[in-house]
Amino acid sequence: MTKNRLEAFSDGVLAIIITIMVLELKVPRGDAITVLKPLLPQLLSYVVSFIYLGIYWNNHHHLLHTVQRVNGALLWANLHLLFWLSLVPITTAWIGENHLDVTPVAAYGVILLMAAIAYFILQQLIISSQGKDSVLKKAIGSDVKGKASPILYAAAIASAFISPWISIALYVLVALMWLIPDRRIERML
Amino acid sequence: MTKNRLEAFSDGVLAIIITIMVLELKVPRGDAITVLKPLLPQLLSYVVSFIYLGIYWNNHHHLLHTVQRVNGALLWANLHLLFWLSLVPITTAWIGENHLDVTPVAAYGVILLMAAIAYFILQQLIISSQGKDSVLKKAIGSDVKGKASPILYAAAIASAFISPWISIALYVLVALMWLIPDRRIERML
Amino acid sequence: MTKNRLEAFSDGVLAIIITIMVLELKVPRGDAITVLKPLLPQLLSYVVSFIYLGIYWNNHHHLLHTVQRVNGALLWANLHLLFWLSLVPITTAWIGENHLDVTPVAAYGVILLMAAIAYFILQQLIISSQGKDSVLKKAIGSDVKGKASPILYAAAIASAFISPWISIALYVLVALMWLIPDRRIERML
Amino acid sequence: MTKNRLEAFSDGVLAIIITIMVLELKVPRGDAITVLKPLLPQLLSYVVSFIYLGIYWNNHHHLLHTVQRVNGALLWANLHLLFWLSLVPITTAWIGENHLDVTPVAAYGVILLMAAIAYFILQQLIISSQGKDSVLKKAIGSDVKGKASPILYAAAIASAFISPWISIALYVLVALMWLIPDRRIERML
Repeated sequence: MTKNRLEAFSDGVLAIIITIMVLELKVPRGDAITVLKPLLPQLLSYVVSFIYLGIYWNNHHHLLHTVQRVNGALLWANLHLLFWLSLVPITTAWIGENHLDVTPVAAYGVILLMAAIAYFILQQLIISSQGKDSVLKKAIGSDVKGKASPILYAAAIASAFISPWISIALYVLVALMWLIPDRRIERML
Repeated sequence: MTKNRLEAFSDGVLAIIITIMVLELKVPRGDAITVLKPLLPQLLSYVVSFIYLGIYWNNHHHLLHTVQRVNGALLWANLHLLFWLSLVPITTAWIGENHLDVTPVAAYGVILLMAAIAYFILQQLIISSQGKDSVLKKAIGSDVKGKASPILYAAAIASAFISPWISIALYVLVALMWLIPDRRIERML
Repeated sequence: MTKNRLEAFSDGVLAIIITIMVLELKVPRGDAITVLKPLLPQLLSYVVSFIYLGIYWNNHHHLLHTVQRVNGALLWANLHLLFWLSLVPITTAWIGENHLDVTPVAAYGVILLMAAIAYFILQQLIISSQGKDSVLKKAIGSDVKGKASPILYAAAIASAFISPWISIALYVLVALMWLIPDRRIERML
Repeated sequence: MTKNRLEAFSDGVLAIIITIMVLELKVPRGDAITVLKPLLPQLLSYVVSFIYLGIYWNNHHHLLHTVQRVNGALLWANLHLLFWLSLVPITTAWIGENHLDVTPVAAYGVILLMAAIAYFILQQLIISSQGKDSVLKKAIGSDVKGKASPILYAAAIASAFISPWISIALYVLVALMWLIPDRRIERML
């Protein structure tokens, strides 16, 4: 079975999730530049959430490009990933409204960790469905990124209780790791 | 006429329905772990609703894969199914906010029963449009799942008035029946 | 230029519009069957709006199936149609909350009339872009439906001031005229 | 890698953004024609926002039609454009609710300027990825529109502090410049 619908459905869900926070932005009352000030934490959360979901969409784009055929297991693994990603906007907003307090920052790490695990599961299922000469397996090689991310997220969750700033730094680090969609997949295709 | 638009439209509607409940989740006020507690029924309803709609999307995916051409009747049968599925999130939330009381649990069964009937109608229309050597007919064989589900849902609606837990058990049973998208369709394609 | 994006974008917008009213349905408070009663006007409006937009999607599906190439004018005519359709849910809800009073019923007719005119413009632009042996022109023949609808809607708007029930009857009549997507397009393709 | 997903995702996001303001329209209470009056600024903002986003979708449609292959940079440039476009509805509404006061009108110009810059970046990345005989480069020639728009927007932002009406006139001028999707792209394809 072809992957058209899997891609279309994922694009639909991600399009909704990535713009969901725009729905929460309320039109400022009044017209002075000062009315923008209370909007800033929300706007900043929106930008961060947009970037993180954009990183996931770009990598999902490259990942699924290596897929020829889908099966029931791939459909479920993909839904699993979409589920965790759908919780990114609200956890981002929770940080935004609480100025980097411990619990929201740790909760953010939990969601990102679950999404990273879900992405890894999807990746492994694609590799195993491609058999011995898996294009994806060749492309990602030793998959440093895929193995390091969950570890860094776990470290970030623990660090939140020492200082939320360490966690934020780790989230940014992982984001930078994945910012550039896999060049190796681009070259192999 | 090809099925591209039918699939794209269905994916759009299902993507919206499956994430609609995320829109309802409000950012917790405050930053202690205790503020998550009132969110739990909503989060749980979201997970359940997501899984049930995911099951329908996966089976819809396999069902439509057997279709070559569409006609007006198929378009309407599909819209009918999408309509009943669009009511899954709100009925799930109704249960979630009322801790398994009789009426919400029975109402949930009514919506699931209507969706199951709609799915069955769509399935039969596809079979009849494929003629004598219908690929789908061969794939589903005696269609135990398709015939058992409405019966189990009807039983669940009645059971709600005895004990809502029996209904819940029956909903879970039907979900497990459909969790694995039709392997026979996968093999036949 | 191919029509893929025009179709995908239309499917996205229509998917959102057709489910928008589900977002407005609030989870009933309490668990008795009586709490459903205040929801009924909203649910009924949702069903009516869903059916009307479903009729438009089905006919749009058949209309665009005759298109081979798109141009800037077609893109704008299609956006024009989507705009008027996006106002169907809110006008349907306005009727639903005001029990068939004159102004909401007349307003509904105005929106439907504008949508019908927009559909007709799109149809004519497709025909003229197909040249002398236009597939669509052959399929719709004398286009009784397309010419009658605006007239019937105008009559309905006027009738609202006599009796809103006449308007409703005319809206139902037009809906029935378009319920079956153009069989002639199906046969010609 | 093909551009299917880039187009589908963009269509999804733009479909949401273009209809987002419909979600904000509240059903008028009461049934007299007078209840529509407070809705008028919102409806007008919706129309303006719809037209501006429609202009962007049409031009994006033609722009991406010249693309054969995508890469990571294109994906990010496209996401960047979608981000700024997602802020068009809320800034349009801000003007609508403040009757053309200075700050909302200037803010609108800032968002439109960022979107224009993002569109220009995307355009240049496409041209550079197409190499020496770039189809898009030939089509847009000296790209008067693409170079004039940011300048006009900057002028509009400054003018807002003299008279918001000058800014509005400049926004309308730029909209008219882009209203007709690039005919040169249509001819070249």
